[in-house]
Amino acid sequence: MPNLSPSRHDPRLVALGSAIRSLRKQRKLSQEQLAELAGADRSHLGRLERGDNEIAFLLLCRLADALGVTVAQLTNEAGL
Amino acid sequence: MPNLSPSRHDPRLVALGSAIRSLRKQRKLSQEQLAELAGADRSHLGRLERGDNEIAFLLLCRLADALGVTVAQLTNEAGL
Repeated sequence: MPNLSPSRHDPRLVALGSAIRSLRKQRKLSQEQLAELAGADRSHLGRLERGDNEIAFLLLCRLADALGVTVAQLTNEAGL
Repeated sequence: MPNLSPSRHDPRLVALGSAIRSLRKQRKLSQEQLAELAGADRSHLGRLERGDNEIAFLLLCRLADALGVTVAQLTNEAGL
């Protein structure tokens, strides 16, 4: 079993990533487009959507802005 | 003028830190007590409350848990 970082696949990160993905798809944005709007790296966004990575709060704020929601709405969508 | 990291004193981190502090005080918790409940370092929590530091999402989840609110409620309290 590879030594995965403890946060990897934490259910809360998985839930947050799914919420980001579903909001992105509702807005018919590709990962490239959302990553560019949020000033993020496309592959990092991919890992975030899969719940593979921790996320820093300011990036979460930029993603929420890019998706046209508040951080509270985004985290609420994730059930967090 | 010292070279401060760009995130330092970002208004969103300052707003989040103030919300954490006001919820902590409403619950009559000291920084030590909240830090212990959330598995955080007391001095790190102090910097977070002042908006001096970025915050990782999982720590934000643990702080919300320790304060008895959802992350959505905590970020909403911060107006984010």
